[in-house]
Amino acid sequence: MSGNSVGKIFQVTTFGESHGVAMGAVIDGVLANIPLTAQDVQKELDRRRPGQSAVTTQRREKDRVMILSGIMNGKTTGTPIGLLIYNEDANPKDYLALKDIFRPGHADFVYQQKYGIRDWRGGGRSSGRETAMRVAAGAIAKKILARENMSIVGYVKEIAGIKADKIDLKVIEKNAVRAPDLVAARKMITKIERVRQQGDSVGGIIEVVVNGCPVGLGEPVFDKLNAQLAASVMSIGAVKGVEFGAGFAAKDMLGSEFNDVVCFKNKKLIARTNHNGGISAGISNGQQLVMRAVIRPTCSIAKQQTALTRDLKTQKITIAGRHDPCICPRAVVVVEAMVAITLADALLVARSRS
Amino acid sequence: MSGNSVGKIFQVTTFGESHGVAMGAVIDGVLANIPLTAQDVQKELDRRRPGQSAVTTQRREKDRVMILSGIMNGKTTGTPIGLLIYNEDANPKDYLALKDIFRPGHADFVYQQKYGIRDWRGGGRSSGRETAMRVAAGAIAKKILARENMSIVGYVKEIAGIKADKIDLKVIEKNAVRAPDLVAARKMITKIERVRQQGDSVGGIIEVVVNGCPVGLGEPVFDKLNAQLAASVMSIGAVKGVEFGAGFAAKDMLGSEFNDVVCFKNKKLIARTNHNGGISAGISNGQQLVMRAVIRPTCSIAKQQTALTRDLKTQKITIAGRHDPCICPRAVVVVEAMVAITLADALLVARSRS
Amino acid sequence: MSGNSVGKIFQVTTFGESHGVAMGAVIDGVLANIPLTAQDVQKELDRRRPGQSAVTTQRREKDRVMILSGIMNGKTTGTPIGLLIYNEDANPKDYLALKDIFRPGHADFVYQQKYGIRDWRGGGRSSGRETAMRVAAGAIAKKILARENMSIVGYVKEIAGIKADKIDLKVIEKNAVRAPDLVAARKMITKIERVRQQGDSVGGIIEVVVNGCPVGLGEPVFDKLNAQLAASVMSIGAVKGVEFGAGFAAKDMLGSEFNDVVCFKNKKLIARTNHNGGISAGISNGQQLVMRAVIRPTCSIAKQQTALTRDLKTQKITIAGRHDPCICPRAVVVVEAMVAITLADALLVARSRS
Amino acid sequence: MSGNSVGKIFQVTTFGESHGVAMGAVIDGVLANIPLTAQDVQKELDRRRPGQSAVTTQRREKDRVMILSGIMNGKTTGTPIGLLIYNEDANPKDYLALKDIFRPGHADFVYQQKYGIRDWRGGGRSSGRETAMRVAAGAIAKKILARENMSIVGYVKEIAGIKADKIDLKVIEKNAVRAPDLVAARKMITKIERVRQQGDSVGGIIEVVVNGCPVGLGEPVFDKLNAQLAASVMSIGAVKGVEFGAGFAAKDMLGSEFNDVVCFKNKKLIARTNHNGGISAGISNGQQLVMRAVIRPTCSIAKQQTALTRDLKTQKITIAGRHDPCICPRAVVVVEAMVAITLADALLVARSRS
Repeated sequence: MSGNSVGKIFQVTTFGESHGVAMGAVIDGVLANIPLTAQDVQKELDRRRPGQSAVTTQRREKDRVMILSGIMNGKTTGTPIGLLIYNEDANPKDYLALKDIFRPGHADFVYQQKYGIRDWRGGGRSSGRETAMRVAAGAIAKKILARENMSIVGYVKEIAGIKADKIDLKVIEKNAVRAPDLVAARKMITKIERVRQQGDSVGGIIEVVVNGCPVGLGEPVFDKLNAQLAASVMSIGAVKGVEFGAGFAAKDMLGSEFNDVVCFKNKKLIARTNHNGGISAGISNGQQLVMRAVIRPTCSIAKQQTALTRDLKTQKITIAGRHDPCICPRAVVVVEAMVAITLADALLVARSRS
Repeated sequence: MSGNSVGKIFQVTTFGESHGVAMGAVIDGVLANIPLTAQDVQKELDRRRPGQSAVTTQRREKDRVMILSGIMNGKTTGTPIGLLIYNEDANPKDYLALKDIFRPGHADFVYQQKYGIRDWRGGGRSSGRETAMRVAAGAIAKKILARENMSIVGYVKEIAGIKADKIDLKVIEKNAVRAPDLVAARKMITKIERVRQQGDSVGGIIEVVVNGCPVGLGEPVFDKLNAQLAASVMSIGAVKGVEFGAGFAAKDMLGSEFNDVVCFKNKKLIARTNHNGGISAGISNGQQLVMRAVIRPTCSIAKQQTALTRDLKTQKITIAGRHDPCICPRAVVVVEAMVAITLADALLVARSRS
Repeated sequence: MSGNSVGKIFQVTTFGESHGVAMGAVIDGVLANIPLTAQDVQKELDRRRPGQSAVTTQRREKDRVMILSGIMNGKTTGTPIGLLIYNEDANPKDYLALKDIFRPGHADFVYQQKYGIRDWRGGGRSSGRETAMRVAAGAIAKKILARENMSIVGYVKEIAGIKADKIDLKVIEKNAVRAPDLVAARKMITKIERVRQQGDSVGGIIEVVVNGCPVGLGEPVFDKLNAQLAASVMSIGAVKGVEFGAGFAAKDMLGSEFNDVVCFKNKKLIARTNHNGGISAGISNGQQLVMRAVIRPTCSIAKQQTALTRDLKTQKITIAGRHDPCICPRAVVVVEAMVAITLADALLVARSRS
Repeated sequence: MSGNSVGKIFQVTTFGESHGVAMGAVIDGVLANIPLTAQDVQKELDRRRPGQSAVTTQRREKDRVMILSGIMNGKTTGTPIGLLIYNEDANPKDYLALKDIFRPGHADFVYQQKYGIRDWRGGGRSSGRETAMRVAAGAIAKKILARENMSIVGYVKEIAGIKADKIDLKVIEKNAVRAPDLVAARKMITKIERVRQQGDSVGGIIEVVVNGCPVGLGEPVFDKLNAQLAASVMSIGAVKGVEFGAGFAAKDMLGSEFNDVVCFKNKKLIARTNHNGGISAGISNGQQLVMRAVIRPTCSIAKQQTALTRDLKTQKITIAGRHDPCICPRAVVVVEAMVAITLADALLVARSRS
């Protein structure tokens, strides 16, 4: 399976460049008879859309998604679902100046070396715009998970050192940074604004929790659920690390602290701790699934930088354009989507075993 | 592809339970004409072997590996290599008492729920003993990488809060904890000894670096090299998080700090920083590859714990047996192996593109 | 990998229903820097197009293909190529009468049973129209093969008992049935016309030969080249059998007759016979690759038939519409495409080994 | 997935050379809680074993299979099953004379060209001995199918032009050629004996029927059940063609003849014809599954032949050793096994959809 597909049974294949004709996806392995409309997909795309607030990029991409196949009378038929978004706000000329320059932190250099050719219009295939199709596919995955009473929520846990002190899921979609804490959200927004004015960018941490995950998802040995989730979330361009449950904090814990003690009351699993993040030995254990990803500061910044040129010399550059000073708020939606895609696949694979 | 295989071209499939007849692996997609002996594999297995020092388990597993196929006159033939280790030190009776108890932190509960049956002898398939075959396969992967002048080194960066202050690769194999700093190593050993006497365990951080990695390994979009490495290393039982380059520290950095500035001198890539850990946009960029994994404290501890029983009640248990108070020194070899397996596959896949 | 994708490195994923919005494909794993235009793809689609002659269906499908991604300045970039054809001549109302009837020989019954829902508009996903995207993908595969001096030619060897007596490749595209023998072609056309007037249909045999196939394509044991080709050609709806070289005639031969005797003259392989059809032990051997497929008579016929209804009763039906009385001439293009797709993948996989 | 594995969920990986240390297999994706003993596997291996009768090779291979993993108290646990057979009757010295000669019809030439090295001891990996592991894996697949009331029967339909006139399943295992017709069997045996005395070999046709196959196995578009079966059966070395239902005879039929008319009586599917061989549009349709494969005459014959040498000259050779003058009777077991493996996988994949 080549690199633009993910999943074994619920399989997502995407295509499209930032400033090409269109972005598209094929979602194969979708269960039949699930109600699905373009609006279900659009709703998620709108959460990822640029220009939602002052702290994100001001580019206007309408990103209207079309469902091309796999649907009959508003229900999935079990055949692959083709999705398409035409690129409308494409201004490749903006990038002509960067045709022979490899922007720092971007794929420009490695694509040129790997393929001997590259689409320099806005990063082409390596653009963050590629994630639109992940979000679209994730919307369909979420429909499958919802049928099994699984729900996924993502939020910004930390931006530029400012941490969310409390987790109030109700406020996430009510602030520009998707933090679960309105006080922290305000500080984050102020910080991002200041950084933007300096022509710079910041990163942060995204947390995703999954409720209702049944016991038994994930396969031994190499297809552990956390291994699959790590791969799918790490495949998002800006992610530099992932962790589950206690994560990196486990390095300072004793075994007697770390081991989660669980018991059953009225057939319901009870546990005081969740250091394993809902996954034991690679298989979901019935506790809440908890995963975090660190998001690097955006590569594209207005500040002057030293870049490599195509003939491997260096040159000073200033990247114009409308870039996110902090990608975290929009990346929340992408991380959620990748978690959804991976869980939908794990669910269908586990089903084949029973 | 089911869960006991990993890789697309260089494909490793393993089998075997901790106290079953044997552990085995099939390594498919091996290049032909590479010199290979059982001793090449044994050498790596010996680095993982229990009983190497006072800080690891005192179990004696000789782990003599046999090569069953794929070799002719000391060279690989391109056909799959079958590897086998008979289990010798197996004492399933030790585990009879745990037949109906789910040990905290272990796979016992989830395997029983998932399959409705489980091999309770030492954790069966979910035992850390399974990693012997990863190490064996990794030894073969390393031979392929060596031919391309790639080398992998792993070490313990931190145990129980004690950090290696310097990175001296020469001392790694000369101390019981595989730390690159002899002063830190001594402190780690003392700490582990103390914890063991308390019937407890500790975790830590392992770092792996790869030198000589050519530009261009890894595929967009979902098969990014860091995504593949994240999956393969996260599939090791004790790993709870992974990161590349700056990793989680990226959350506090500015874009202008994080972006690595590179230049070329005499056709050699020079860079002052390596925050991306040698991977840009999912593709190796010619810098040193740097990855870290956090290792949780060992599940099996002598201290009394509360465990779930098969009928979902709770019971106090004390786990007897000879367990590692800190698995990090041995896990170094396993992490190296998974990195090697993933890079060998990425190398062969990239080759199909050129 | 779900059922709408084929290939390991050169991977084709298709979607779309006969009377849905559009048909599409994603071609991943395409080598970079290969000149490619929409016209290259269109040319092959035009060979498959309905309404080419009196002996095929009179439906008019313009089938204008769009390339949505993966191309820069007329060259492939190594990123996935998205292809799209909007359905224009769709008249779903024609099929309303068949909404609750399962047409004999068609997928109607099995799709309803498998999915509990089905797109009854012209067979939906199971329609022969799905093969348009195979042909489009095959056009790209052919470009890769051409670069390696491999060429694929398909023709109709036999229709309704009328055999091509000679193989003159030059006349194939010059007669309505794509036979390599103009005399036989005329008889075939007359026969098809007669059958059509009787409201019936006929089948035949298609032969594909490949010149320039290098030694070494195909992998032992399960991925033998003939196994891969058998799967890909058998996945075309109308194919009921495939054979290589002597094929089914081998049943009456002696070993001493069947074994091909080869020799080398001036480094060129010479052989009097080719009973193996260019593949020994699953690996291309340097001789011409020869494969045949039997095509069943078209399911959709005007003659009255007994059909199953949705409530599993029977009913007399007459299928209106413009159907091919013999699909062989158009199927030639589809078989060629599947052979091309399979060889392109085998070529890239073999490359990873060397 | 590399070439020595087959299947998506029920995945079989094999290794081993004819005269190496051992042959082995790993069967992953096996359902848990299925009773399984080494004897279940041995029983099928004994049906394939050489030396069963006068018409097969007189080599004595005991082929005692060991189950190394995946079993607990006589039941499968859901973890991979490792199987091993040590090679006992290996006499590599017999083959020293053939070290630099490429035997006609064998893999010798293509392996040397593909890998630049080859195991010349009895064909190494390309030996028919490799099929032992297919049969072993097939035995496990049959256990899964049996639980769903599916049964597979294979037999020799034709050898050297002598056809079985009737199909009496009870006599298949009671005659040396596994024909379903004792009169034809006697003629076949006489014919084979005569051919053997002439130092030659013959081929034939094997038919496999599957009863109890539920509606809905197989996936559109590329993973049609017949496509998967074609690949798996064609991957058996001696097979040169496969067909389903009417197969190649479809070339002479009218659509009105070919279309199978089905009806339901007491919820049971009734049909007078089965030209589709139990598969409509790539999905099992509830009728009996009928598949045929043509087996080429054995490559290894005692008669003098002209062979290629390693330096690409020609030389007369006479192949000594104990070879099957007709492989059909033993190949029946291998074809059955491949059908079983493919159906078990299709069953588990289909399950993930429902």
